[in-house]
Amino acid sequence: MNLLILGGTGFIGSKLTRNLLGQGYHIRIMDRTIKPMDINSLKLELIEADYTKVQDFKPFLQDIDIVFHFISTTVPATSNIDKIFDINTNVCSTLRLLEDMRQTNVKKIIFLSSGGTIYGHSNMDAIPEEHPTNPICSYGIQKLTIEKYLYYYYHEYGIDYQIIRLSNPYGKGQNGKNGQGAIPIFIRKISQNEEIQIWGDGLTTRDYIYIDDVVHALSLLPQYNGRHKILNLGSGQGSTLIDIIKVISDELNKTPKIKFLDPRSIDVKTNVLDITKFTYALHWKPEISLRDGIKLMLE
Amino acid sequence: MNLLILGGTGFIGSKLTRNLLGQGYHIRIMDRTIKPMDINSLKLELIEADYTKVQDFKPFLQDIDIVFHFISTTVPATSNIDKIFDINTNVCSTLRLLEDMRQTNVKKIIFLSSGGTIYGHSNMDAIPEEHPTNPICSYGIQKLTIEKYLYYYYHEYGIDYQIIRLSNPYGKGQNGKNGQGAIPIFIRKISQNEEIQIWGDGLTTRDYIYIDDVVHALSLLPQYNGRHKILNLGSGQGSTLIDIIKVISDELNKTPKIKFLDPRSIDVKTNVLDITKFTYALHWKPEISLRDGIKLMLE
Repeated sequence: MNLLILGGTGFIGSKLTRNLLGQGYHIRIMDRTIKPMDINSLKLELIEADYTKVQDFKPFLQDIDIVFHFISTTVPATSNIDKIFDINTNVCSTLRLLEDMRQTNVKKIIFLSSGGTIYGHSNMDAIPEEHPTNPICSYGIQKLTIEKYLYYYYHEYGIDYQIIRLSNPYGKGQNGKNGQGAIPIFIRKISQNEEIQIWGDGLTTRDYIYIDDVVHALSLLPQYNGRHKILNLGSGQGSTLIDIIKVISDELNKTPKIKFLDPRSIDVKTNVLDITKFTYALHWKPEISLRDGIKLMLE
Repeated sequence: MNLLILGGTGFIGSKLTRNLLGQGYHIRIMDRTIKPMDINSLKLELIEADYTKVQDFKPFLQDIDIVFHFISTTVPATSNIDKIFDINTNVCSTLRLLEDMRQTNVKKIIFLSSGGTIYGHSNMDAIPEEHPTNPICSYGIQKLTIEKYLYYYYHEYGIDYQIIRLSNPYGKGQNGKNGQGAIPIFIRKISQNEEIQIWGDGLTTRDYIYIDDVVHALSLLPQYNGRHKILNLGSGQGSTLIDIIKVISDELNKTPKIKFLDPRSIDVKTNVLDITKFTYALHWKPEISLRDGIKLMLE
């Protein structure tokens, strides 16, 4: 089976590529800049191209069975700066891709959506996929719009799809740039005795999932043809920022310096995913606890 | 109170303008082409501008309290031809408007959404506002995306909003162009002994509401500040295409010629709105039956 991975050299994509090559899949990666990867495989093909500027995806789609779509030009915090850019570069680029998938008869797309932003505010301890979707940032809206087009393309043109609403992944190889990734940022600051800045009271609760658990879960998807078109992917466990700081300080045996700032309006108070469906549908479960994950990062 | 009506010379906008002027509101209309209106009022201001090309809405927003947004560059059937055009001209134009509303402190926007396409397939006899939203055409997706941005702008920037999910309006003044409006098309064809083309078996069920009922309902909105941000607006009654043809033939005393074509994938089987919320919130109810509405059109 031949897979195209859009964003295949990134934090998640590069690790997934390694896993899928190990399973025997042929992989074609498309990314804006192809970073050096210490993989030698005749089954790996690398294409350097800016997804948002590609007017014709057809050459990249030749002989592809499934497209993994991991590209976003924004992150939640940056998406609100220019919402038109957010829509143009994400929604419209994906529409160009889908139109070319129709013409090249590519069967399926697996889209990485956002479990952290797509639901918006919730009072639930664990959010199931049926929860209302009222994002409070542009990032969540563009992800939702793409989800709706995937549903439409499936019903109108028969392009199959799988939506993965991922929570907050973390782990080795995460660079913490773009302000994304509380855990790598906290690790760096605490180990260097720098001040940590927290928006709000530190009790903001998120669902953190270790990268190896994410990659294992995603690696099962090319073989999945079940009825759940939308699946949450997370640890199913909530951790506050204070929880994280405690674990890191504890493991590093250091005292953190914390500065509390005003809460940001784009942050929901709590976001923990109900992962029941993924667990049952893919016979998968997260294996790495927050403490074990942080230990792995500190190694 | 000063109102800006985007699309104010159209089928709905022109009749609403007349009603609102009668109530004493100051009205500013913006439309692509200002058609002659037989209204003389010092309270009416007309601006000819192409909504999709306006880069700066601020001059048009001066002293405005509420914006009525009736513009769409597509209709359901045409929206799928070029989805990127659909998104760019509708979603991105509305985002430019919203950004300028922030800067000019306009308090509220009333947005005409689509009760006919936003829900997608449904097994319900009457669809309430909480029903899942899975459109099967691009038109429904762009309307939904705009709804989501309205929610976001309210929570992030305090711009109040009212979403009206309108069913199928019909009535005097409807031109039946763009393939929109089964009723005016059927009236013209039956009265001229022309063949009617129907996609499917003619049992496609829709919620048709007479224009005067729509305008009465919309005219109440500037005074509404209740908690229902999303309101269905329709007759709450389902009619099939065959029902309509029967009534028109009956009133014209003519025998219709019907050609049955293959069903279109963009048409849901049935779409009737649950209008309970609008009825209670605005103390309004539809007054004109399908037969009475058709009689009014035939006058």
